[in-house]
Amino acid sequence: MAEKRLPTRLLLEEKELPRNWYNMNAVLPEKHAPALHPGTLQPCTLEDYEGAFCTELAKQELNVTDEYIPIPEEIMDFYKMIRPSPLIRAYCLEKSLGTPAEIYYKFEGNNTSGSHKLNSAIAQAYYAKKQGLTSLTTETGAGQWGTALSMACAFLGMDLTVYMVKCSAEQKPFRKSVMETYGAKVIPSPSTTTEIGKKILAENPNTAGSLGCAVSEALEVATKTPNCKYVLGSVLDHVILHQSIIGQETKTALEKYGVEPDLLVSCIGGGSNFGGFIAPFIKDKINGKAKYEILAVEPKSCPSLTRGRYAYDFGDTGKMTPLLKMYTLGNGFMPSPNHAGGLRYHAMNPIVSKLYHDGYIKCTSVEQTSVFEAAVRFAKTEGILPAPESSHSIRVVIDEALKCKETGERKKIVFCLSGTGYFDIKAYTQYNDKTMTDYIPTDEDLEKGFATIPDIPQNK
Amino acid sequence: MAEKRLPTRLLLEEKELPRNWYNMNAVLPEKHAPALHPGTLQPCTLEDYEGAFCTELAKQELNVTDEYIPIPEEIMDFYKMIRPSPLIRAYCLEKSLGTPAEIYYKFEGNNTSGSHKLNSAIAQAYYAKKQGLTSLTTETGAGQWGTALSMACAFLGMDLTVYMVKCSAEQKPFRKSVMETYGAKVIPSPSTTTEIGKKILAENPNTAGSLGCAVSEALEVATKTPNCKYVLGSVLDHVILHQSIIGQETKTALEKYGVEPDLLVSCIGGGSNFGGFIAPFIKDKINGKAKYEILAVEPKSCPSLTRGRYAYDFGDTGKMTPLLKMYTLGNGFMPSPNHAGGLRYHAMNPIVSKLYHDGYIKCTSVEQTSVFEAAVRFAKTEGILPAPESSHSIRVVIDEALKCKETGERKKIVFCLSGTGYFDIKAYTQYNDKTMTDYIPTDEDLEKGFATIPDIPQNK
Repeated sequence: MAEKRLPTRLLLEEKELPRNWYNMNAVLPEKHAPALHPGTLQPCTLEDYEGAFCTELAKQELNVTDEYIPIPEEIMDFYKMIRPSPLIRAYCLEKSLGTPAEIYYKFEGNNTSGSHKLNSAIAQAYYAKKQGLTSLTTETGAGQWGTALSMACAFLGMDLTVYMVKCSAEQKPFRKSVMETYGAKVIPSPSTTTEIGKKILAENPNTAGSLGCAVSEALEVATKTPNCKYVLGSVLDHVILHQSIIGQETKTALEKYGVEPDLLVSCIGGGSNFGGFIAPFIKDKINGKAKYEILAVEPKSCPSLTRGRYAYDFGDTGKMTPLLKMYTLGNGFMPSPNHAGGLRYHAMNPIVSKLYHDGYIKCTSVEQTSVFEAAVRFAKTEGILPAPESSHSIRVVIDEALKCKETGERKKIVFCLSGTGYFDIKAYTQYNDKTMTDYIPTDEDLEKGFATIPDIPQNK
Repeated sequence: MAEKRLPTRLLLEEKELPRNWYNMNAVLPEKHAPALHPGTLQPCTLEDYEGAFCTELAKQELNVTDEYIPIPEEIMDFYKMIRPSPLIRAYCLEKSLGTPAEIYYKFEGNNTSGSHKLNSAIAQAYYAKKQGLTSLTTETGAGQWGTALSMACAFLGMDLTVYMVKCSAEQKPFRKSVMETYGAKVIPSPSTTTEIGKKILAENPNTAGSLGCAVSEALEVATKTPNCKYVLGSVLDHVILHQSIIGQETKTALEKYGVEPDLLVSCIGGGSNFGGFIAPFIKDKINGKAKYEILAVEPKSCPSLTRGRYAYDFGDTGKMTPLLKMYTLGNGFMPSPNHAGGLRYHAMNPIVSKLYHDGYIKCTSVEQTSVFEAAVRFAKTEGILPAPESSHSIRVVIDEALKCKETGERKKIVFCLSGTGYFDIKAYTQYNDKTMTDYIPTDEDLEKGFATIPDIPQNK
């Protein structure tokens, strides 16, 4: 008897949308080590977090008890415009590969920010507004986060200042213009609008800027401006919490259509899309009921999980943030400039780090040119031009599907296509022109980064 | 009693997808005048069309009898990846306007081409391949059509050469790179690859190119290359036919959710998104059963319907195409260079022209800066950065909704948001910088264009 053909798009109706975020911290059998205050080296308290973040987000950061956290109605109203994001059966890719594997992808790029970042941006802006704040600051590198937060702030009528890494602002003027169209003030960093920016410029007038510097400028302005806080788009646990909407929808849709996955795949940089995608699937991994594997994919040029150290480190190169226990290449690690797109962060969200350390998830790393080869193949068969970041997942999924072709296994593979590459055309041009190169740091390169990990008692 | 709240997204399941295109030519009470061979001035025959187009498309162009034309299964498989496109209730826009009107938009921009153009691109490439052709040629201006056709040809494994208006290729290098990523050969026009291109370059080495010239180059190459035909993305009746998937889905969804529209709005250039959007709604307008109005919106800078003449004219400035009876500003008309985005075509699809001439549809025109004001307002409330073209509709919809605020009328307005503005950031920057200007041609300007309408007996 012929099997029933699943629709190409595994749709959810609005009434089937998840009403809660999923908090992995509530189900970890052993909690991850607490964040430490950089001055006292004592665990960060709510008050510590409230210095930089709004209260509700600080509470979420510290919440290790509530498995489900209700999504406020106002945020649901926004989500309903852009969600559920489609879960798509990649029939055409499967056919072109000639694989018996079933491939599904959760596509988060169907919004103007071009990625999943909007899921947390709207939540963070909402809580800030509810607390009576009138403006926010943040940093952005590649620009997806800055765009997403600009959209969220425009929607809620809040002011936003984005410190955008100078070389990125110059290379991606369109990203800057989109943020400005949404009303954000975009300042190439380092700038003369902050003390730290002036200091850096005085020392090095021609610097191209860095994410670490942009963080420091955004933090400085937030601290000095009334009714203003700093927000960020990855790494912290409350960001992963908001992104769990991705996994919640994926799980609901798979259950609705009777698909039992064998392998869940997502790319990983700071952990936001990966953490959100796997969130509701992790409990069954922990209690041993899951028959699926969970696989993270990182670039070989910035291999925080596969080659990093599990230690307390700063989140920024300026060493201003709390210390987090995470897989890290050292806060001084800088990926090679030939690395395109995001996934450049030196460390990894603490929950994801803990899950990896305890063996609940696996990680593999891939090279840039092979990633773009997969990206172009996907674009030609599935129609979507993927983000370089998301294409790391595609590389691994195609390889897995080709293995299934050898073995005949009908593996069900589900991956998160976290965004589109519409603003990453320069990297595609390099790939087309065959001027794109690969880079794998040597052990000596890594040692230089490791030397920047703080030498504190907790790291002994 | 409180009314039941409609979901934000009026979803259709895959099994509810339309299986047919809708052919307006079958229901026009009086057929539009036939296309004329430019040499003989006799009605074009199937053979005439087959000179440039593949046979099935030529047949569709001449089909005035079949109201429903089945969509081949292979095209349905492609549509299922990107369709149904969402029909969205603009709750947030309504709220921000404080209007009692209900606003709905059919969003065609959720694919990498960024617009509705893909609906016809895949159909045209499919029929060409089925006929045994191995390559296609086309022209592109703003780039949406070229991108869409590149995607379709990549999907089907066909070669494609795109002649891209030189100034557009220079101003939008990213568009060019996207097409190249999909495997298309993109040649800035005029070029030295054709006789007509060489001739134009010899006369004017510094020309910025024009759509008319790009059409001529693409046609020349198609004629000289074995197993190759020319395709185009608007104006002709078979293009409108394929685009009727937009209207078919819209009508199905409105009926499913019990929404009876009062006003249907869409922007108009050559007619492809407008014609496709209104197609299945036109029969009830003709037989008098419809209680809705149908309104086209064109730019004041290129007002073919509101200020053009209803006459036979060429489709290109090179006067190589068949003569079509249509509203035209004259094939020599050029919109002012300060006009951003598409909707620059001098004339209008013959079906749409006939419907307008016979009073079944209305048209209004709007100015550029007011269009961008509406676009930014929409982007901030509904999250989507709209294409400049689509924003013409938004301008009119917002004005209508504000009128309803005065009158208290709960008008149900449905419009087609034909695409996104991700590759039109330069125009948004001009708007943000307040360097954008308006332009309304004077009667004298228009007379110069009208003088290029051919002086043939049928135009007396």
